[in-house]
Amino acid sequence: MNNQLTAARQGKITKIMERVAKDEGVDRNLLRENIASGKAAILANNRHKNFTPKGVGKGLCVKVNANLGTSPEKYGIKEELEKVRMAREAGADTVMDLSTAGNLNEIRKVIIEESRIPVGTVPIYQAAVEAVKKRKTITNMEPDEIFEVIERHGIDGVDFVTVHCGVTQRSLERLRSQGRITDIVSRGGAFLAQWMIVNKKENPLYEQFDRLVGIARKYDMTLSLGDGLRPGCIADATDRGQVEELIILGELCAEAIRNDVQVMIEGPGHVPINQIEANIVLQKRLCNEAPFYVLGPIVTDIAPGYDHITSAIGGALAGYYGADFLCYVTPSEHLGLPSPKDVRDGVIVTKIAAHAADLARGNEKAFALDKAMSTYRKALDWQGQLKCAIDPGKIREFRKDRNLKDDVCSMCGEYCSIKLMKDYLKKK
Amino acid sequence: MNNQLTAARQGKITKIMERVAKDEGVDRNLLRENIASGKAAILANNRHKNFTPKGVGKGLCVKVNANLGTSPEKYGIKEELEKVRMAREAGADTVMDLSTAGNLNEIRKVIIEESRIPVGTVPIYQAAVEAVKKRKTITNMEPDEIFEVIERHGIDGVDFVTVHCGVTQRSLERLRSQGRITDIVSRGGAFLAQWMIVNKKENPLYEQFDRLVGIARKYDMTLSLGDGLRPGCIADATDRGQVEELIILGELCAEAIRNDVQVMIEGPGHVPINQIEANIVLQKRLCNEAPFYVLGPIVTDIAPGYDHITSAIGGALAGYYGADFLCYVTPSEHLGLPSPKDVRDGVIVTKIAAHAADLARGNEKAFALDKAMSTYRKALDWQGQLKCAIDPGKIREFRKDRNLKDDVCSMCGEYCSIKLMKDYLKKK
Repeated sequence: MNNQLTAARQGKITKIMERVAKDEGVDRNLLRENIASGKAAILANNRHKNFTPKGVGKGLCVKVNANLGTSPEKYGIKEELEKVRMAREAGADTVMDLSTAGNLNEIRKVIIEESRIPVGTVPIYQAAVEAVKKRKTITNMEPDEIFEVIERHGIDGVDFVTVHCGVTQRSLERLRSQGRITDIVSRGGAFLAQWMIVNKKENPLYEQFDRLVGIARKYDMTLSLGDGLRPGCIADATDRGQVEELIILGELCAEAIRNDVQVMIEGPGHVPINQIEANIVLQKRLCNEAPFYVLGPIVTDIAPGYDHITSAIGGALAGYYGADFLCYVTPSEHLGLPSPKDVRDGVIVTKIAAHAADLARGNEKAFALDKAMSTYRKALDWQGQLKCAIDPGKIREFRKDRNLKDDVCSMCGEYCSIKLMKDYLKKK
Repeated sequence: MNNQLTAARQGKITKIMERVAKDEGVDRNLLRENIASGKAAILANNRHKNFTPKGVGKGLCVKVNANLGTSPEKYGIKEELEKVRMAREAGADTVMDLSTAGNLNEIRKVIIEESRIPVGTVPIYQAAVEAVKKRKTITNMEPDEIFEVIERHGIDGVDFVTVHCGVTQRSLERLRSQGRITDIVSRGGAFLAQWMIVNKKENPLYEQFDRLVGIARKYDMTLSLGDGLRPGCIADATDRGQVEELIILGELCAEAIRNDVQVMIEGPGHVPINQIEANIVLQKRLCNEAPFYVLGPIVTDIAPGYDHITSAIGGALAGYYGADFLCYVTPSEHLGLPSPKDVRDGVIVTKIAAHAADLARGNEKAFALDKAMSTYRKALDWQGQLKCAIDPGKIREFRKDRNLKDDVCSMCGEYCSIKLMKDYLKKK
């Protein structure tokens, strides 16, 4: 038996739990308890080798995921592998392979090999792409094919899969009756909704959820219950369709946990700042405190080119209120596929948001790092600051570009407040 | 009589109030009431010509200021004027001239002329620089010289001045007895503290506050009561020194308002997310809801090179909780003087934060803009999106660089969820 949730329930602490507890500096018994109750999850497919498993959820620091993968407009595997390396080096905790073009099986395998961190996928993408190849349209996709793809991902060692089980006839009806500006903006959600509407059938991932749970359990693959109806703009946020879907995800989450399958819940999306807390409270309550994995939230629609920032604002706040896992957004969101540089920028900025949330949640390691940074700053010790900085390369580059000497910052020059006050405020 | 607060109290709506009310789309009587009670202020020196006055405070949208000005390390006036233009074009509501090198009187005059928006200054900088020139050290500065410089700024048309009146012997003692990692990081605060400690005297701006009020009233120059003791790192946030200073500012604020002088209160600084709401509530309560002008707040110390983002996170949140005016922070904060590009980036990102706060506060104009943006996005109408975007140039540049056609975004290509769902979810 090689399943973290089963072990946790039986009171066993696995090697993987030990490793995660050590990396995070948390008590391993507490970690085990949180896994047993479904409040934390460890992303570690039992066939995945040579990688650093990561925990998400209660008691753990806020994690960051980087999305990458080919698209029909751009499908060089080399560039995607460069993105994997950049994401990892910038500090991403996980990557998701969202490829929809090229040899998908091959791409997934090399990304898993290259990443050395947990890898997630959205299997419905591959099922849809293969349906289009074989039978012209997504609507001709066979339910069995979806499950077959999911199993393939499990066999390959994928650590978590996004499955949009909450896109049901009822949630679609609620969405439709309320009306939306941007309808469905989740690709997986749109694939399924189109299939369901044309075929007049229920979502196979909902109807055969037990089958999905069976596959996930075999590989200890965490189910990331996707928010196919997440709002795509501020005006659509927290509407009836979104909340109906979340209720369904809560029900499915409980069922998966009962069956020894780990779960995360995915969350929005575009959400104004004043609705973020409610979204987190609702998710935590409806899903029995399952780990919450948010995309953004993006706090305004009007800033294409800066959506790594609109989502860092939302993500930091979400993390403070209790979100556990932030999916990055890059500067190219809403504009095009990210470049390797966009991936790097996205990861760094999302890590800043996650760290700010950790600080706000009282994480002692996070606090100690900021304190060390500021102690070096007070001492005008640039080498020390480089050790604590989230991106030391950026500082080096900046100071080199502007020819700055070691003990000076051109901002204030001789009128540096730190220099001025050096000897005046010693604690008596 | 040409003083907004006096007029507001007498029930008169000035041309400037009319203009601000119109620009903001708010009721002019409500604006007048908020000015009369000190809950809003209009930045408009009565000698300042040919510029757009701006209101800050209750009922108005969140404003953005850009700092610029020479330093001993860098003092080209041409570059500073380029920054003024960039700030204004990027949408800054005000600029502050923080120059400490070159011909300060001349620089201030050309910045006022060039900006066409309200201009703020920190007169203690000039007083300190002139003291160093005339008498070797800041500690030899004469109190009269400080007031003389402030008057000079009033005559020149400066719309608001930062005056660190709350750095008193008592607040310094509280700061010293608690102990800090970064002591004082406000330059003006440090100048005054050094002077006070060496000369063993009270802060002239506190002791002769009535004199300051008299000068400000003459020119209808808004007093921006500075937070000389703002925390310079997360570990120092919301400490006894900071709160003591805020209490003093609340007392002085009431005195100024009584004497028909408009006031803003300046706020931190480095503040973890979980302390931001308390800082706003405290300021609003202690200062009778006077407009709150915050620098950041920066939500983590470890991200030099990205402090426009750490401060956008804090600023958006502060704005949501009730801060009225955000002082931008540029990517070069903690590293050096900003370049013109840094100024532009800082303004755009701070405007994003201000807009996200406006949305969260229920500002209808802000909501309508996001809704329009998303309606164009749904229609894949790029021209429409350009009209609503906070930085259309960025979008054009991005799409040009990547050779994107009009109806496609390379992110999903043919698997675009919007295209897929186009006809399926029409409201019945």
